[in-house]
Amino acid sequence: MVSVTIWNEYRHEREDGPAKDVYPDGIHHALADALSAYGHTVRTATLDDPEHGLTEAVLDETEVLVWWGHLHHDEVADDVVGRIKRRVLDGMGFVPLHSSHESKPFAALMGTSGTLRWRETGEKERVWVVEPSHPVVDGIDESVEIPEAEMYGERFDVPAPDTLVTISWFEGGEVFRSGCCYRRGNGKIFYFRPGHETFPVYHQPEVRRILHNAVEWAQPADTPPSRTETEHVTDPLEPLE
Amino acid sequence: MVSVTIWNEYRHEREDGPAKDVYPDGIHHALADALSAYGHTVRTATLDDPEHGLTEAVLDETEVLVWWGHLHHDEVADDVVGRIKRRVLDGMGFVPLHSSHESKPFAALMGTSGTLRWRETGEKERVWVVEPSHPVVDGIDESVEIPEAEMYGERFDVPAPDTLVTISWFEGGEVFRSGCCYRRGNGKIFYFRPGHETFPVYHQPEVRRILHNAVEWAQPADTPPSRTETEHVTDPLEPLE
Amino acid sequence: MVSVTIWNEYRHEREDGPAKDVYPDGIHHALADALSAYGHTVRTATLDDPEHGLTEAVLDETEVLVWWGHLHHDEVADDVVGRIKRRVLDGMGFVPLHSSHESKPFAALMGTSGTLRWRETGEKERVWVVEPSHPVVDGIDESVEIPEAEMYGERFDVPAPDTLVTISWFEGGEVFRSGCCYRRGNGKIFYFRPGHETFPVYHQPEVRRILHNAVEWAQPADTPPSRTETEHVTDPLEPLE
Amino acid sequence: MVSVTIWNEYRHEREDGPAKDVYPDGIHHALADALSAYGHTVRTATLDDPEHGLTEAVLDETEVLVWWGHLHHDEVADDVVGRIKRRVLDGMGFVPLHSSHESKPFAALMGTSGTLRWRETGEKERVWVVEPSHPVVDGIDESVEIPEAEMYGERFDVPAPDTLVTISWFEGGEVFRSGCCYRRGNGKIFYFRPGHETFPVYHQPEVRRILHNAVEWAQPADTPPSRTETEHVTDPLEPLE
Repeated sequence: MVSVTIWNEYRHEREDGPAKDVYPDGIHHALADALSAYGHTVRTATLDDPEHGLTEAVLDETEVLVWWGHLHHDEVADDVVGRIKRRVLDGMGFVPLHSSHESKPFAALMGTSGTLRWRETGEKERVWVVEPSHPVVDGIDESVEIPEAEMYGERFDVPAPDTLVTISWFEGGEVFRSGCCYRRGNGKIFYFRPGHETFPVYHQPEVRRILHNAVEWAQPADTPPSRTETEHVTDPLEPLE
Repeated sequence: MVSVTIWNEYRHEREDGPAKDVYPDGIHHALADALSAYGHTVRTATLDDPEHGLTEAVLDETEVLVWWGHLHHDEVADDVVGRIKRRVLDGMGFVPLHSSHESKPFAALMGTSGTLRWRETGEKERVWVVEPSHPVVDGIDESVEIPEAEMYGERFDVPAPDTLVTISWFEGGEVFRSGCCYRRGNGKIFYFRPGHETFPVYHQPEVRRILHNAVEWAQPADTPPSRTETEHVTDPLEPLE
Repeated sequence: MVSVTIWNEYRHEREDGPAKDVYPDGIHHALADALSAYGHTVRTATLDDPEHGLTEAVLDETEVLVWWGHLHHDEVADDVVGRIKRRVLDGMGFVPLHSSHESKPFAALMGTSGTLRWRETGEKERVWVVEPSHPVVDGIDESVEIPEAEMYGERFDVPAPDTLVTISWFEGGEVFRSGCCYRRGNGKIFYFRPGHETFPVYHQPEVRRILHNAVEWAQPADTPPSRTETEHVTDPLEPLE
Repeated sequence: MVSVTIWNEYRHEREDGPAKDVYPDGIHHALADALSAYGHTVRTATLDDPEHGLTEAVLDETEVLVWWGHLHHDEVADDVVGRIKRRVLDGMGFVPLHSSHESKPFAALMGTSGTLRWRETGEKERVWVVEPSHPVVDGIDESVEIPEAEMYGERFDVPAPDTLVTISWFEGGEVFRSGCCYRRGNGKIFYFRPGHETFPVYHQPEVRRILHNAVEWAQPADTPPSRTETEHVTDPLEPLE
C-alpha cells in the first residue's frame, strides 16, 4: 500500500453552496475516503495550511502526491512548487486532477501552458480506454460514463504523453486526452481530467478505481538516486587510446 | 529558407586560448557560416548584448532559435527566458546544442533537470542514427564519427523524446541520447549533443548538415494560434439534451 | 512534388448505386484529382488489375502508396502484400485510408488486428487536431467537421502511434484516433480515418489538404539502404582489449 | 507470482560443445531456475516438442511467454506463430530474448524486419538504464556490465519502443536499444538483448533480476476482452439529430 498525500485548494467547498453540497468536507476528504478504502495510507494538506501543508517533513513521508487546484494556482508559493518538482524528479509520484491542468507544479514539470477549452454545462462525458493493458485502467471497462461534467476540450497544450491511456468524449462536440502518463526524472505523473467541485465525480466507483490504480502505478520505484547536478566523471570506464 | 537567430554565450572564445584557436570569431559565427552556406538567413546574438540580443523585435523575425550556452546559464535573465519559452509554444523552432542541456530555456521547456555525466578527455564519439527516415538525419550515413569529443553520458535527465533520432557511443564506455526531437505547444525542439568550445565539431560537414536539417524541420508550421489562456467556450458545438 | 500511386479496391463504385453517385469514376479518381491539383504525379491501380496493378515496375516509380480497401481485403495476394511491406521498410511512404484499417498491408506493418467498433448512420464527425505543429495538419484549423460519416470507435487495435495527430469525435458517443503517424524501417505511414464510399468526404477541401500534406510528409527520405538481412560485421570499429 | 512458459530452440546446447558447457541443461533450464527462484511458476517448451510444446492447452495456462530462438526460426510452424500472436493481442505477455530479434512471433507482432549488425568476439557490453522508473529495471543500478557478449548494433529495425528502457554500449564501437517495451493489443512485450548460447549471461544476477521484473510487468492486466473482429454497433450511444 502506498503513502499518499492529497492536496486540495479547499476554497470552493468552504465558500460555495453547490460545492459544499457535493463535498461537505472538501474534495480532499472524498479522495481520502476513496484511497483509504483501497488500503492506502492517506494524509491531506490544503492551500491555507502553513507552507500549504507540504513541509519537507510531510514530503519525506509522501510516496504519491495527489493534487486538486483550481482558481488559486497563483497563491501556491514558488518555493513549495520547486520542492514538489524536485521530489517528483527524485521519484515521488504525482497525480494532478482536473483543473490542476494549469497548476504551478504540473506546469513546471511539463514545460507547456496546460491551456485548453472549457464549458460548464453539466454535459455528459464518456471516458474511452485506448490502452487497456496499462495499470491505471486495470479493471475498467471499455468506457466510463460520467453523467454530468464540465467540458475540457482540445487542443490541450501538454507534451504528447508517454502513454495516452484514455480519451474523453463530450456531448457538446469536443474530445480530450483525459488520462495521460508521463515519466519525469525518477518520478511518474498521471494527469486525470474527470472531477469537478460541483459534480459528484469523485463519488463514482470507476473514478475511484482509476485513482487507486494511479496511486499504485505512480509509487516510487527502486532506482539509483537522481542527480541534482551534472556529474563530473574524471576517469573513463574503459581505457582510451 | 529559414530565418535563424543563433545565440551564443560567447565568453570562452574571447577568454580562453584553446577556444579562441578553434572558433576565433566565436561559435556563433561558425554556426552562422554553416547555416548561411545552406541558404538560411542568419543573425546572431550573445549573452553580453542588451537583452542578450533577444529583444521582442529580434524574436519577431526569428523562425528558429539556435542556442549555445555553457558556464553562464544563470546570467540569462528570467524575462528573456520566459519570452523564449512563450515564442516556442507559439511556434518558433528551438535548437539547443551541447552544453545547453542545462540552459534555462531548455530546462523551462522540458521540466526536468537536464543533468548527465561528463568527462573531457577528447575521446571519440560515434553518433548512430536510429530513426533514419527522420528529416534531421536526411543525407546522413548510418553513423557519424567525431574524432575528439567531450563525453556526455546517461542517464540524461530529459523527458523521453517524441522521436529519438540518434544515440552516441563514447570510447570511454558511455552512451547518450544525442539527437532528441520534441514538440511543445506549436513549436518544435531539437536537442543535439555534439559540439564543444575546444573541439572543431562545428566545422565538420556531417554536423553542419544535421544543423541545417534541424533548422528546416523546426521552422514554424501553419497552425492555429496558440493559447496563452484557457478559453471559455460558452456555447456547445452540438445541442445538449 | 511526389510520385504517388493510389490503390483502390474499386468494387463499390462499380456495383452500388450510392457509391456510384458519390464517386462515379471510383474513389481512386477522386483522390487522384485531389493530389494532382496539388501538383503530385499520380497513377492509379485497382484490385482487379493484374497483380492488383502493383507490379515491381510500378512500385519502382512509387514514392508514396495511398490505399483504399474495404470488403475484399482477403483477395489481395500475399506476395503483393509482402512486396508492399518490403517497399515500405525500404522507404516508400504508405497512406492507408478509412476501411483500410484491416487491410493486409497495414496489418502486416502494424502487427495488430486493426479491429474497432463501427456504425453506419451518416452521423457527424469532428476531427480535432492535437499536434498542430505536425506537417500532416499544416494549414488546418483546430478541428474539421465532416457532416456525414461512418462512425469508427475505440478501442482501435493499433500500436500507439509514434505521433497522434488527430482525434475524432462522433455524434453517437465515440472517439477515435483518426490521424496516426508511424515510422517503420525507412518508411513513413499515415493512417487517416475519414472517407467512405457513400459520403463525399474526399471531395471536402480540408480532407484533400490533409492528404496532400500526408503525401509530402511520407515521401522517402535520403537514408542509408535498409537491410533485408542481419549483417555480420566481422571487424570491430574500435580495438578490443 | 506469474505463470511463465519458457520456450527454447534447444539445439545449440545439445549439439555444440561450448554451449553445452555453459548451459548443460539448455538455456530454458537456466532461465527456469532464475524465474523459479523469484517464485514464478515455470514450465518449458522446445522446438522439437510436438507443436513446439505450445499447444492451446499450454498457452491457456501461460501468462507470460519467454522466447529464445536463434538459427531455426524458420522451423517454427506458422500456425503456432499465429496462435502466439493471437494470445499476445489477447493479453499474454511476451519476452523475446537476444537472437529472437528475428523470430517469427516477434516479427509478426512488430511488422518490421528486426535486422541489425552483429559480431561475435566476446567483447564487453554495458547496459545503461535510460528510464529508471520503469518496473523492468527496478532494483538495477545505472548500468550493468556484461563482461563477454556478442555485439548487436544499430540500426535495429524495430518500431520505436513505447518505452525505451536500456541502451547498450559495446567495446567495439556500437550502441543498441537493448531493452524495449511495447504494448500490442491487450498484451505487453519486452525485448531484451543480453544473452547468448556460449556466454554465461543468464547466470548473471542483474540479468536474472531484469527477467523477473519483465515477467512481472508483462503479466496480463484485467482488461476488457480483445476483439478478433471489428464490431458492428448498430445503435448509437447518444441520440443523433
